[in-house]
Amino acid sequence: MQSFEHLLEQFNRYFDQKHFPDHTPTLYEPAEYFLGLGGKRVRPVMLLMGNELFDQIHPDAWDAGVAVELFHNFTLIHDDIMDQAPLRRGKPTVHERYGASTALLAGDVVFVRGYEYLNKVNVQHLQRLLALFNVTARQVCEGQQLDMDFEKRSSVKLEEYIHMIELKTSVLLAASLQMGAILGGAGEGNQHHLFEFGKNLGIAFQIQDDYLDAFGDPSKFGKQVGGDIKANKKTFLLIKALEVASGEAQANLLALLQSDPPEKVADMLALYRETGVDQWAMELKEHYYQEAMRHLDAIAVLSSRKSALRELSAFLIQREH
Amino acid sequence: MQSFEHLLEQFNRYFDQKHFPDHTPTLYEPAEYFLGLGGKRVRPVMLLMGNELFDQIHPDAWDAGVAVELFHNFTLIHDDIMDQAPLRRGKPTVHERYGASTALLAGDVVFVRGYEYLNKVNVQHLQRLLALFNVTARQVCEGQQLDMDFEKRSSVKLEEYIHMIELKTSVLLAASLQMGAILGGAGEGNQHHLFEFGKNLGIAFQIQDDYLDAFGDPSKFGKQVGGDIKANKKTFLLIKALEVASGEAQANLLALLQSDPPEKVADMLALYRETGVDQWAMELKEHYYQEAMRHLDAIAVLSSRKSALRELSAFLIQREH
Repeated sequence: MQSFEHLLEQFNRYFDQKHFPDHTPTLYEPAEYFLGLGGKRVRPVMLLMGNELFDQIHPDAWDAGVAVELFHNFTLIHDDIMDQAPLRRGKPTVHERYGASTALLAGDVVFVRGYEYLNKVNVQHLQRLLALFNVTARQVCEGQQLDMDFEKRSSVKLEEYIHMIELKTSVLLAASLQMGAILGGAGEGNQHHLFEFGKNLGIAFQIQDDYLDAFGDPSKFGKQVGGDIKANKKTFLLIKALEVASGEAQANLLALLQSDPPEKVADMLALYRETGVDQWAMELKEHYYQEAMRHLDAIAVLSSRKSALRELSAFLIQREH
Repeated sequence: MQSFEHLLEQFNRYFDQKHFPDHTPTLYEPAEYFLGLGGKRVRPVMLLMGNELFDQIHPDAWDAGVAVELFHNFTLIHDDIMDQAPLRRGKPTVHERYGASTALLAGDVVFVRGYEYLNKVNVQHLQRLLALFNVTARQVCEGQQLDMDFEKRSSVKLEEYIHMIELKTSVLLAASLQMGAILGGAGEGNQHHLFEFGKNLGIAFQIQDDYLDAFGDPSKFGKQVGGDIKANKKTFLLIKALEVASGEAQANLLALLQSDPPEKVADMLALYRETGVDQWAMELKEHYYQEAMRHLDAIAVLSSRKSALRELSAFLIQREH
């Protein structure tokens, strides 16, 4: 079993190339521009790891990994349009630089290119991988739509939010692992546990992400700390705070959501601490992390083969293991 | 060989159903809404005809036809966003009714659903059909980008415009026919001629469409006649007129493009007649129609099997045959 870093290095050697023809640069340059902004490439590496859990890496895993990474980038290009985000990884987004219409089309062709890479896998695995890829793609769209719906609603239940996160974030991690498992010849039971491992890990990761956006160390966290609070974004923390706050805390919370004072972030953090949602979030993260580990344990391969996935999990959710 | 009408009726029975789950209605209702607006379903019927040219209709042809039709609808949903079109088939467009973000996502899931139908075909044909579908999808995106690029440019050459039309309109007709041919067991040579037949027919059809937008009978033409002229849209007619007009006609043409007088449509039609581009367009249409027929003739099957495609061609480009 190779480490995340080692697999990432190999994947990047495979991925960091031109993905589109030279002609029609008004369409393909914006697509290449976005792919060149980089990224952690977590999903394709998880696909490789899901494969290596069961067998040596199948030659088709590299192309399937590119497909998954291109799909992820397609969703980012389109999400940036919907969110009207000016920056991605510190650089102008595609729609900011090339206009919304070109960004829409560039996203579309990145998606198609993903299917072209997927179609390189041996026909023996194609139908199964394509089915998983398709259903996952639709679920990610569902998650994005629910996320937009929730932002317009005054209240969202915790289980609704978790369901949305599963769709928007978790299923692609889980499906990437499972695609690797399919290429590795894993049986249905092992595929199921690996998928559930990824799904739970994804939720734990999102709880962590929401937590760090509020309580993170600005020098370590990549994004502006407090951004979610300033935007009244419904996160694990805000949804739980709205659920548990009562009396004066509830009144303060509602007032804070309807105003934009300079001390908004500090006041909201104080409220989160007062209502105990900071502590609750860490416990919830731990719960999903343990669920993920339970499913990883249940996979019927030698425990030593699982070390890379264990290390990656601990790294992803910043947990001392 | 069954007629277009007969195949259309059968295809509509297969196609006119819910294509998406009941859950997440904020995403799937807009998608179903658009599919419910109807359409001529020319592409799937051409796929069925391409199949029947060589053999009885393969059971997979229905699903491949749905895939092609869903792909076409995906492009329309996204094109409407880019064009900021308020109406499609006389009804509000998806972005007009549900907002641009939902329209973007609804287009994406219609596209994914197309791949789900394509994945129903027997694995024996899957890789070949998927490859053709993917490259066609990318070419249609290229065509749309070129179309937008051309609208921003002061001059476009005729061959550039024809190339754009090939990508934006023709290749999907051609690929639909070829997908049918593949399912019908056609050899490479026959596939090639059928593809070229569709490509040339598509260009002839677009010339016809540009012509009717200017010279059509308002009571018969579905769209507002003169819409292209009012919008200074680069069409076969305008591009040729800009190329051939000289002296006073050229001055009048350029002045007309820079103004918006009430008699703009009538004046432009007069200019088109004066420069002979109306006649030229009909000859160019005939040229591509004959090219299409030449390729249809070259397909090595009994001539009697080709009658439905001949009738469809004549109907599509409104030609007495």
